Amino acid sequence: MSILLLTRPQPPELFSEALRALLPGETLWESADAADAAAVEAIIAWQLKPGVLLRYPNLRLICATAAGVEKITAMPDLRDNVMVMRVVDPLVNTGLAQYVLLMALRHMRSLQLFEAQQRAHDWTRHRPPDPYSLTAGILGMGEVGRTVAAALQIAGFNVRGWSRTPKDVPGIAMSDGADGLRSCLAQSNYLVCALPLTPQTRGLLNRDTLAMLPRGAYVINVARGGHVVEPDLVALLDSGHLGGAALDVQDTEPLPPASPLWDHPAITITPHIAAQASVATVSAQFAANWQRLRAGRSLVNVIDGTLGY
Amino acid sequence: MSILLLTRPQPPELFSEALRALLPGETLWESADAADAAAVEAIIAWQLKPGVLLRYPNLRLICATAAGVEKITAMPDLRDNVMVMRVVDPLVNTGLAQYVLLMALRHMRSLQLFEAQQRAHDWTRHRPPDPYSLTAGILGMGEVGRTVAAALQIAGFNVRGWSRTPKDVPGIAMSDGADGLRSCLAQSNYLVCALPLTPQTRGLLNRDTLAMLPRGAYVINVARGGHVVEPDLVALLDSGHLGGAALDVQDTEPLPPASPLWDHPAITITPHIAAQASVATVSAQFAANWQRLRAGRSLVNVIDGTLGY
Repeated sequence: MSILLLTRPQPPELFSEALRALLPGETLWESADAADAAAVEAIIAWQLKPGVLLRYPNLRLICATAAGVEKITAMPDLRDNVMVMRVVDPLVNTGLAQYVLLMALRHMRSLQLFEAQQRAHDWTRHRPPDPYSLTAGILGMGEVGRTVAAALQIAGFNVRGWSRTPKDVPGIAMSDGADGLRSCLAQSNYLVCALPLTPQTRGLLNRDTLAMLPRGAYVINVARGGHVVEPDLVALLDSGHLGGAALDVQDTEPLPPASPLWDHPAITITPHIAAQASVATVSAQFAANWQRLRAGRSLVNVIDGTLGY
Repeated sequence: MSILLLTRPQPPELFSEALRALLPGETLWESADAADAAAVEAIIAWQLKPGVLLRYPNLRLICATAAGVEKITAMPDLRDNVMVMRVVDPLVNTGLAQYVLLMALRHMRSLQLFEAQQRAHDWTRHRPPDPYSLTAGILGMGEVGRTVAAALQIAGFNVRGWSRTPKDVPGIAMSDGADGLRSCLAQSNYLVCALPLTPQTRGLLNRDTLAMLPRGAYVINVARGGHVVEPDLVALLDSGHLGGAALDVQDTEPLPPASPLWDHPAITITPHIAAQASVATVSAQFAANWQRLRAGRSLVNVIDGTLGY
């Protein structure tokens, strides 16, 4: 019985090296071509092509290397007896918080204006907004949202959180549901999307909801491209209602070279680099669950198929 | 008896409006030309020209609007019976922390590389450094340094602090003195200068000390231009030993248009905008000390003339 590594673009050799030390004696395959399909019991994957799961009749566990698991849990060929686990890596949350801080502060502190002034040798001063005069709203207050919230608070933002269902987060003004979303958006000069992508959250940031943001608001998406209706975002930037957006994720990845998002003056595009779980963490958390499975114990960080997170 | 407002480039009218409400009945002058020099008992100032204090024989209190007070305390015409107070504004500390976070994360997360990739419609991913794999060293662990330290810690940096004399800061690995400086510098991938400018700290960041930083280190100065020997910094950037620098303060301000710092590819210049105390806070803290002075009580936040901070 064996483990198949479908981790590309991350090199599978890195994972097999780490797993050999953690699970000595297990068979590890670094590509589908090399694998004996009938023997595959576990797959570690970033994403899976449609239909691929049909090849592995004895599959019991899929470990998703990315925080977003919707590409795997939404597969129609995912059988009920196959568990999907995710990796919970506090360093990933910190990496996402770094990205949010960077993009929020770059906008709030007018970095691009000062860069232009430097090119012109112009030392004109501009007073920054007072700390705590602006509010950041965070959609999704799971592990990621809470880490982002703490970082934004210490960096001088008022922080509000929204979750789809009621949630209590110490020190954060929370709201939930459709009415709560409206009030959170209405107060958010910075809007951070940190939601899981589910049928309920796909397209949540559309013309109607983005229009609820205050004039000049800045949108930061570190979740999934599918949360944002990209043409609606562009329309609200073009109308001047929104001030800008930083999109680490896009509806189609890699973003096609012909996409109009690349050249929009108010949009910052990055290639899904806000955070990535380390090979060591993925390998250790997979190995621990694999040993639980072998021992007939229940697993941790398993995705609820109904909720999708 | 009266108060003279020499706050330019900040408009003195803003301060007189705030002070009229706080200290009704006091005479306020918005320029030296308008003032009756013999009646001036207090001055609120950003900086003072040499010799200006000789005009005010009855001066008792100077309130510095900037965190750095060295331009005032170093004046040879400052008499012993004139007290100098500074403004302690937690929001200024947060503003400085925002600037440090922005510049450190912009470098750590390769923002300029991703900006160039966006211009080229290039979606190539690059793995960021793991959070907590890099260390930020902070020189000067007063109010500013401690606020910066807390923000950098939550943003994923290991933080070390250095102070000239021994100081204990909970949760921060501290060092002090010449030997401590050497060890702090040797470990600092990011170096933040948050020192007061005194005869002991002027030119502290020179060819010898900057060379102690690890190869590729990034320097952020939010204190005073006089802390950095600018030609030495440029030499170490040119040699490739240092990776870059963000200078919110420069030895000559405004930075002259002909300065070579403007066009150095590894230097970011901003026009002393990292943080500024609000008019409301300056006015309130001055008014409170002014009332203490009137009542014969001791003042708060008075500068020690020997230490210079």
